[in-house]
Amino acid sequence: MADEIGTRTAAVAAAIRDRLATRALAPGEKLPSIRRFAATMGVSPSTVVEAYDRLAAEGLIRARPGSGFFVSGAVSPLALTEAEPRRDRAIDPLWVSRQSLDAGPDMLKPGCGWLPAEWMPNAAIRRAVRGLAQQAGEAVLTDYGAARGALTLRRHLVRRLAGEGIDLGADQVLLTASGMQAIDLIGRFLLRPGDTVIVDDPCYFNFQALLRVHAVRPVGVPYTPTGPDLTAFAAALAEHRPRLYVTNSALHNPTGATLTPQTAHRLLTLAAAHDLTIVEDDIFADLEPEPSPRLAALDGLARVIRVSSFSKTLSASIRCGYVAARADWIEALVDLQVATGFGGPSPVAAELIAATLTDGSYRKHLEALRRRLSRARREAAARLEPLGIAPWIVPRGGFTLWCRLPERQDAGALARAGLAEGLVLAPGNVFSVAQTASGFMRFNVAQMTDPRVYEGLARAMAQAQTDSPPTPSP
Amino acid sequence: MADEIGTRTAAVAAAIRDRLATRALAPGEKLPSIRRFAATMGVSPSTVVEAYDRLAAEGLIRARPGSGFFVSGAVSPLALTEAEPRRDRAIDPLWVSRQSLDAGPDMLKPGCGWLPAEWMPNAAIRRAVRGLAQQAGEAVLTDYGAARGALTLRRHLVRRLAGEGIDLGADQVLLTASGMQAIDLIGRFLLRPGDTVIVDDPCYFNFQALLRVHAVRPVGVPYTPTGPDLTAFAAALAEHRPRLYVTNSALHNPTGATLTPQTAHRLLTLAAAHDLTIVEDDIFADLEPEPSPRLAALDGLARVIRVSSFSKTLSASIRCGYVAARADWIEALVDLQVATGFGGPSPVAAELIAATLTDGSYRKHLEALRRRLSRARREAAARLEPLGIAPWIVPRGGFTLWCRLPERQDAGALARAGLAEGLVLAPGNVFSVAQTASGFMRFNVAQMTDPRVYEGLARAMAQAQTDSPPTPSP
Repeated sequence: MADEIGTRTAAVAAAIRDRLATRALAPGEKLPSIRRFAATMGVSPSTVVEAYDRLAAEGLIRARPGSGFFVSGAVSPLALTEAEPRRDRAIDPLWVSRQSLDAGPDMLKPGCGWLPAEWMPNAAIRRAVRGLAQQAGEAVLTDYGAARGALTLRRHLVRRLAGEGIDLGADQVLLTASGMQAIDLIGRFLLRPGDTVIVDDPCYFNFQALLRVHAVRPVGVPYTPTGPDLTAFAAALAEHRPRLYVTNSALHNPTGATLTPQTAHRLLTLAAAHDLTIVEDDIFADLEPEPSPRLAALDGLARVIRVSSFSKTLSASIRCGYVAARADWIEALVDLQVATGFGGPSPVAAELIAATLTDGSYRKHLEALRRRLSRARREAAARLEPLGIAPWIVPRGGFTLWCRLPERQDAGALARAGLAEGLVLAPGNVFSVAQTASGFMRFNVAQMTDPRVYEGLARAMAQAQTDSPPTPSP
Repeated sequence: MADEIGTRTAAVAAAIRDRLATRALAPGEKLPSIRRFAATMGVSPSTVVEAYDRLAAEGLIRARPGSGFFVSGAVSPLALTEAEPRRDRAIDPLWVSRQSLDAGPDMLKPGCGWLPAEWMPNAAIRRAVRGLAQQAGEAVLTDYGAARGALTLRRHLVRRLAGEGIDLGADQVLLTASGMQAIDLIGRFLLRPGDTVIVDDPCYFNFQALLRVHAVRPVGVPYTPTGPDLTAFAAALAEHRPRLYVTNSALHNPTGATLTPQTAHRLLTLAAAHDLTIVEDDIFADLEPEPSPRLAALDGLARVIRVSSFSKTLSASIRCGYVAARADWIEALVDLQVATGFGGPSPVAAELIAATLTDGSYRKHLEALRRRLSRARREAAARLEPLGIAPWIVPRGGFTLWCRLPERQDAGALARAGLAEGLVLAPGNVFSVAQTASGFMRFNVAQMTDPRVYEGLARAMAQAQTDSPPTPSP
């Protein structure tokens, strides 16, 4: 019965659509009255109302209270198409993001910073979404929710952090719209224009993009296979009196390196001596085969602020990040988040994340993911080797492979040539404050199972050498 | 069969929970091996794995690869409780937000800025969520999505804005995490510390909170029942050379007033003469009985930027806002959004919003909502009258009622006394840059159907007069 009504409604809507397409009904014109059109079509008036409502919801027609329905102004089909990313844009810290986010469906993305959709726990997410439809109360579906974000997920994070040895209360966790937004809020809280901030060199390019927005000066400290170079770190502290150090722990982006316990301890000792605050982003933590030292755990959230999100192992569509920090700092961050975004992240998103995390399948998903990445890493390294591209180190986990290009290959020129070959690449210098990584490229092994990646890369390498004069190594 | 397994798993999980509660298993201790515990419980090893996984997902136990499962560190129940809002905090532009967002379930919220959950289109949202579980592709569930946000929703907005007479392309629409975040991005794009920004007096308190974060100076222009006072507006332009004017159109917050066509036209003429950019937030548009003049439509998005969201009529949990503006400005805003939050809002949120908007029922929901609000407005005004509280104007639509308090009542003192009576109120001065609204209170008629609101208000009024000396009217 419901289906039959649906079919009739669809038929009436289709008849109107035809008249709009052929301009039998022109923009601005009044539609037939409901009663008259019902008679014409041999359906009930309520079916016509249903059809008109559907077309109005699509914006094709508009209801004017008291006067009926009218044809909307024409929208050119061009106005409804997606903008392609600009290929000529400068290769800056936003280049990889913009090319990756808006890449057309035919592009391959060995440079992008996330896993393919089919590697994510789709079945568990779908279960969580179904559960939401069935069980969620009205408040969860429509209300703003608590200023710190949904308590369900914050409780889960309190338990999880306790497992790392970090004791904290739910009032010390603030959910945010994303991991980046978490760092942005911290920047707004702690930084003033002109301040200096230490980052790793290389570091995640978006840290640089963010610091630029805050009008602060990034100072890069070389990253070694065991963490930041401590001599350079100490020198930077003495010379620049930085306010903040922003870093990735667990699996460092882009190198995949791991902080050792000694480096972590000495780093915190240096930070204490210079009253430095540290933002530790451990967004890749769930990809580690086993937990590595964490600054927040050693420090107990005294001068370390933990940020993270679920975008790399669960979903980047159901976006949600968090900050764990001193209670008084969180209180200030809540004010900032209300002022700049009103309220926390979507309660619906937080509930879906919590439901997927507490679904018993999440651990198995992670285990399968780690095995799959391990295979993909070996495979990618083996297929890059004949091209003369060699990993700087072989990471313990994760999906990044920070590689040295052959002599005379400039990563920027190669990335440009890659676009023409249908490849989004991540050239070294977008990660380097000092711009000393033109001979490096970050690869995402999970996005490199298609052989066309290597064929395109070979052609792009040949092209890049023709395009640009060889750059001397720094 | 599936149920039977579920029951066995639950029984095993419950047995472990018991041992944890009684400390038969202490923090750090290793759990029985899977094989041994399967024998103890008379179930299959896979059932024990399932149960352990569930407990691990809850954070009660942890898996150590290769060594089995261990009891997690203890988390005190106190660490898992929600923080109450601080009652002693200063009555500043963040006061209403913080008290409303974190109000306990027993508080009544005539001061809050949104509709009760049960007034929202819950059935349509639930249908949209169910549709997502059934039909969404993996990319929608887990990928970052396009930098400007989901094309489905942007197309809908292009059509909707075309209906207002605003011609634009999908590349001129940027989805954001919320309406406030949209304004925040614009501020980051156009404002520098020390700039001056015009706001209405009174205006939505969070505009002031946001401008404070941007370290710019707000200048208030008195709002009249037909829009801003144009003489004062012209004087402010001449004196302060402001960079931006941020305002609510459709139904002005807090007054519920409507811009007239003459005021809108003169305002744009003044803006053009002084090269002023205007942010028009029409978040209450769908609550209007019929459309009022819009600055963006008159101006054609030349110097007006439209921002809005779906939080007031659809869902604030499935958060999503947008900006419509010149294409080159949107391009710059995309960069800022990537740098500070990475990518647009949750694609899942955008898809759910689009599905609910194009569900034929949305127009009927809005019509019912307007009728219900109209009744609630009359009823609230009638019940406030005996308390000596009178509306400044009776708005054409929406849920706000901007009211003058009786002589000698200070809205701030009353708001504090209200908390003790279980009421979150919105005192006038949080809306007033010049702090000239201590004799006003904003009420939300949709949150005032419970008679305890009026009883509490009467008691709080008596208490407030005792607490604080009468304030002379400005």
